[in-house]
Amino acid sequence: MGPDFLIPRHDPQLISFASDNYAGVHPEILEAVAAANGGHQISYGDDVYTAALQDTFRRHFGERAQAWPVFNGTAANVVSLRAMTAHWEAVICAESAHINTDEGGAPEVAGGIKLLTVPTPDGKLTPELIDRQAWGFGDVHRAQPRVVSLSNTTELGTLYTPDEIAAVCAHAHDLGLLVHLDGSRLTNAAAALDVPMRALTTDAGVDVLSFGGTKIGLLYGEAVVVLNPDAARGVDYIRKTFMQLSSKMRFVSAQFETLLGGDLWLRNARQANAMGRRLAEAVRPIPGVRLPRPVEANAVFAILPKDVVVRLQKRFRFYMWNEAVSEVRWMCAFDTTEADVDAFAAAVAEEMATASS
Amino acid sequence: MGPDFLIPRHDPQLISFASDNYAGVHPEILEAVAAANGGHQISYGDDVYTAALQDTFRRHFGERAQAWPVFNGTAANVVSLRAMTAHWEAVICAESAHINTDEGGAPEVAGGIKLLTVPTPDGKLTPELIDRQAWGFGDVHRAQPRVVSLSNTTELGTLYTPDEIAAVCAHAHDLGLLVHLDGSRLTNAAAALDVPMRALTTDAGVDVLSFGGTKIGLLYGEAVVVLNPDAARGVDYIRKTFMQLSSKMRFVSAQFETLLGGDLWLRNARQANAMGRRLAEAVRPIPGVRLPRPVEANAVFAILPKDVVVRLQKRFRFYMWNEAVSEVRWMCAFDTTEADVDAFAAAVAEEMATASS
Amino acid sequence: MGPDFLIPRHDPQLISFASDNYAGVHPEILEAVAAANGGHQISYGDDVYTAALQDTFRRHFGERAQAWPVFNGTAANVVSLRAMTAHWEAVICAESAHINTDEGGAPEVAGGIKLLTVPTPDGKLTPELIDRQAWGFGDVHRAQPRVVSLSNTTELGTLYTPDEIAAVCAHAHDLGLLVHLDGSRLTNAAAALDVPMRALTTDAGVDVLSFGGTKIGLLYGEAVVVLNPDAARGVDYIRKTFMQLSSKMRFVSAQFETLLGGDLWLRNARQANAMGRRLAEAVRPIPGVRLPRPVEANAVFAILPKDVVVRLQKRFRFYMWNEAVSEVRWMCAFDTTEADVDAFAAAVAEEMATASS
Amino acid sequence: MGPDFLIPRHDPQLISFASDNYAGVHPEILEAVAAANGGHQISYGDDVYTAALQDTFRRHFGERAQAWPVFNGTAANVVSLRAMTAHWEAVICAESAHINTDEGGAPEVAGGIKLLTVPTPDGKLTPELIDRQAWGFGDVHRAQPRVVSLSNTTELGTLYTPDEIAAVCAHAHDLGLLVHLDGSRLTNAAAALDVPMRALTTDAGVDVLSFGGTKIGLLYGEAVVVLNPDAARGVDYIRKTFMQLSSKMRFVSAQFETLLGGDLWLRNARQANAMGRRLAEAVRPIPGVRLPRPVEANAVFAILPKDVVVRLQKRFRFYMWNEAVSEVRWMCAFDTTEADVDAFAAAVAEEMATASS
Repeated sequence: MGPDFLIPRHDPQLISFASDNYAGVHPEILEAVAAANGGHQISYGDDVYTAALQDTFRRHFGERAQAWPVFNGTAANVVSLRAMTAHWEAVICAESAHINTDEGGAPEVAGGIKLLTVPTPDGKLTPELIDRQAWGFGDVHRAQPRVVSLSNTTELGTLYTPDEIAAVCAHAHDLGLLVHLDGSRLTNAAAALDVPMRALTTDAGVDVLSFGGTKIGLLYGEAVVVLNPDAARGVDYIRKTFMQLSSKMRFVSAQFETLLGGDLWLRNARQANAMGRRLAEAVRPIPGVRLPRPVEANAVFAILPKDVVVRLQKRFRFYMWNEAVSEVRWMCAFDTTEADVDAFAAAVAEEMATASS
Repeated sequence: MGPDFLIPRHDPQLISFASDNYAGVHPEILEAVAAANGGHQISYGDDVYTAALQDTFRRHFGERAQAWPVFNGTAANVVSLRAMTAHWEAVICAESAHINTDEGGAPEVAGGIKLLTVPTPDGKLTPELIDRQAWGFGDVHRAQPRVVSLSNTTELGTLYTPDEIAAVCAHAHDLGLLVHLDGSRLTNAAAALDVPMRALTTDAGVDVLSFGGTKIGLLYGEAVVVLNPDAARGVDYIRKTFMQLSSKMRFVSAQFETLLGGDLWLRNARQANAMGRRLAEAVRPIPGVRLPRPVEANAVFAILPKDVVVRLQKRFRFYMWNEAVSEVRWMCAFDTTEADVDAFAAAVAEEMATASS
Repeated sequence: MGPDFLIPRHDPQLISFASDNYAGVHPEILEAVAAANGGHQISYGDDVYTAALQDTFRRHFGERAQAWPVFNGTAANVVSLRAMTAHWEAVICAESAHINTDEGGAPEVAGGIKLLTVPTPDGKLTPELIDRQAWGFGDVHRAQPRVVSLSNTTELGTLYTPDEIAAVCAHAHDLGLLVHLDGSRLTNAAAALDVPMRALTTDAGVDVLSFGGTKIGLLYGEAVVVLNPDAARGVDYIRKTFMQLSSKMRFVSAQFETLLGGDLWLRNARQANAMGRRLAEAVRPIPGVRLPRPVEANAVFAILPKDVVVRLQKRFRFYMWNEAVSEVRWMCAFDTTEADVDAFAAAVAEEMATASS
Repeated sequence: MGPDFLIPRHDPQLISFASDNYAGVHPEILEAVAAANGGHQISYGDDVYTAALQDTFRRHFGERAQAWPVFNGTAANVVSLRAMTAHWEAVICAESAHINTDEGGAPEVAGGIKLLTVPTPDGKLTPELIDRQAWGFGDVHRAQPRVVSLSNTTELGTLYTPDEIAAVCAHAHDLGLLVHLDGSRLTNAAAALDVPMRALTTDAGVDVLSFGGTKIGLLYGEAVVVLNPDAARGVDYIRKTFMQLSSKMRFVSAQFETLLGGDLWLRNARQANAMGRRLAEAVRPIPGVRLPRPVEANAVFAILPKDVVVRLQKRFRFYMWNEAVSEVRWMCAFDTTEADVDAFAAAVAEEMATASS
């Protein structure tokens, strides 16, 4: 007897502009999962796929890189930060950083890590902004700064260039701080800048990377990638105690190998970015629509009248970003097509034509 | 350009007797993942698959059940226990419980939860054994017992019957304690006893269940299943802060629906159990092999000479369980076949024939 | 044989303007400690002094108040906040709050509590400022706001009036939030405003209070005072697990009884405040000295040339508050005398007379 | 107006046999507190008393010793253990250890530290007993053993000799483990064995010591004493984040200096131990009284009929230790006198004379 329900339950044609994690799985990734199936493999990471994965990460991130797959992005960040800090050490980040705003307090609650936040205009830290929190070394009354955590692309859709990251890393290292990079969308950043990922990480001085797979087409899986072996301790153990050790890890690793072994990561990132640009170009001329932030990768932020937002959200899913100024966020994914973008832009134009304001 | 590596990297015919998580994914599960793919679905659990999943769990576990998928078994346990306890409360469990021996200290390190352990002959708690730790209520110097945590099947391959669980639950509830069940292999237990899963959980008085999917054929995925809504608080938030909220949750839920919507769970469990019995029956007559524990589901424990173990491990993977007495564990999975068992039992016989002791 | 060292080692005439915790113990407090000595008393708080203490606190804070002595102010805050929150809940506070800036990260590191901070001009929260962080209820991606934490007096020497606190509490309660008050210097605030302490706490709607004893003349000892019994859970247990249960608690309680049983608290607070005012009045007319903040209790903030600060610090201990603008903090204690203030003000005048700028 | 209550509230003649922390403060200690009073001293440990204290501790514990005063014994243990372990590391201790049984779960709840416990006949670990938990190094599924924690005297009133401690330390160090000693009653142990305290600590190989002051006559105060500087990291910061940094630390340090600068510690310990022996000798001949454990310092364990216990507890305070076998614990303190012991022993004899069993 088979299951008494009918899959699929959803309309596989329906596309949204809400988040790149609304997307499904790239077909090549699913094929890899199927290919890795069958027979028995050692569990908990001692399988042949995970072994092979180290070479793949090293081709991208240099000879000293070591990758530890985990389940999701929150975990990649918290495991990374915990492995980089002693019990009493703190992390400097932008106020808008995902670790501060969108992880339910996981760094503090599960990790016991204090975040020292800095307001930024564009989600990006600079040496000057870091200095606002990088002080009090040796003072027991102050949580000791130990790590600077960046995101690239940022939560505001902006990019750090290799030079900007290098400047931050040089400054941090001068202060005795380590640098973590939340690379939930590192592939998008590298594709947008047309540089290898190591230009934005290893070569710029980043110590530990949270590498994102899910948003760029994996079924599940992110990785803690230690670029500087002196910068992290006990990742193996922390991954386990933080509930991130996958028993059937061969399937996570096979996905990563498929993403990174060839150019799938780049194809997917280019597609998402191109759709972001296409959308920006399509809506920018529409009277009454304002794009308040540069569109540098796959995220488009727009300000438009509230009644238009309401009507548009009945037709397409996306998120209100800042209710106060009626700013919305539109995100393109690896599977967003030109037709999707054009249909959405047309809808924007239609709804704007009847805007009340 | 495609990937520059060749998948599969492993021999899909190779079977082990090391663990049921050495197995891969049941083909129907992979089909479900593929069927749930395509288009966009709301992330983080607001998708149609996860919505539908609640009905499926309720058919198995009763009208009050609510399920929260998480990534792995350690997480199902730690999230469950944290949701059942206040900050200062403790958990009574068998010394041999997985949460005590095999999770790297996750309950204490990530959860901040003290375990109050009890030695047991067979991995099973009884009212009498619970009483060894269920005392000191109201004494601030003693970590306050709040939860009794059982495993079924146990880590020693043994089973609790519905009556045994009911007796434990009644006793625990009389003491004002809640009951958690680590059901990493609950399907095997129900199949072995030929009872519905709710006979071992909801109907027996269990309050919160860690339901295991990975070992019975999922790609990944376990679930915190709250059977008594008064027994757990904040599972939503704890799952997030404990880094267990899957963004593309539709795929976890589609797997569970496939496992539980029909009888796949039962077919898989029966197969694993049958292979356990077959293996026990095949090796029991071999001179020099001793089975020190009852074989009640898919695990077979055997004592045999160390040199035999060494030679056998060169042919098949399995674990030494207790070096001191040369006790090994052989675990059968949903994909273990009669031919696999027969080949393995033959190897045991061959190696025993040349045993040095 | 007696000790081979000579006590005292210090000059008991030397007074500083660094902090009210540079002061020693009020003589009446030492007498109380001596009077409580001798014989045996039940340890860990079941003594007659601790029992009597509850009535004393209730006379000040109302019939529902219950006090739990702890060792220091950091502990009073962290125990209070942990008792007011579930595992995943967060605390809104001013960016300048002591819990955020001066406790080494204790709320996050030991308590696992995320702070949601708000910049303020004067260290004071208002309903409008609270709203900047009081949102996202029910969103698992956001640490759930649960408590608003105020300080009175604030870290910037400013005061909340009863009406201001009532407005904050009403707003917080409307939002379903609880209110904690860091009353490390509550006695100074009440004395300055000439109101009973309950006007600033219980009557204004505060739920839980950290009551400060050390800065106002105790040897050691602060208290978690629960004003609203529905607002805190498990203080007994949290105090113990957070290492704050004093074995010889009779001595902490006897100190509190001496401070609060009569008017010692008020005498001490009035003295410290009066000295703050006297100092402000004495230095305000000195050319080149600027007092950038209102002097409302015992703290005086002043801006003066850096070379003057350096020379002055060779004569009296006090802290640079903000290096960037050369702002210093001068704090008066219960034992600061008019002569101390006059001598210090004279020194300021002398050094200013030869200021380089 | 003075306080409206009358101190003392208790009978200073009343002595108990419940615990050495029922005792008050030794008069020389109170004098030292008074002598350290007056004037201002730098807070948080930068005072002259705390500076001088290091020399005093070094005279007892060797040139490399460094002491950090904390508030209580639970804190001394948890701060020590946290400073000795990385985030994922665990502590081996006797099942009867205070850290396991009497600290409300503080090591796990506040410290996030897993304890690996071993049943012992007499509260003492041996190399063989340590081996029961010292395994699984490098296995991520097992909490990594890192520290062996001993208590001397033990919770069962027994002693380790210098040789026994040296044997444990040598074994632990061979395994790559560190050794912590809970010296809540180290003074009693040294006095009983008539050896310097360093014979039981530094010279025997102990790495970090929790030194107990409260039970031997201090008002409050224990110390983390790092004997091997390579064995602990970040004590300064951990003490602060674990809420153990006293602002008016001069008073804690002056107490320790008085205890340890001369022979007060030894006089007090000898008195308590002598009273323990006197009590044992007085009750041992009483028919029906059995002393099931060796009386090696200031604790006497006795088994006597339950009705006798009940009647005796109406006359003197002491604790039932093990209800099941009607075993009680009688503890002598530094202020227990011969007359106290004789009166108590007489009461035991009287009540035994009318025992029902």
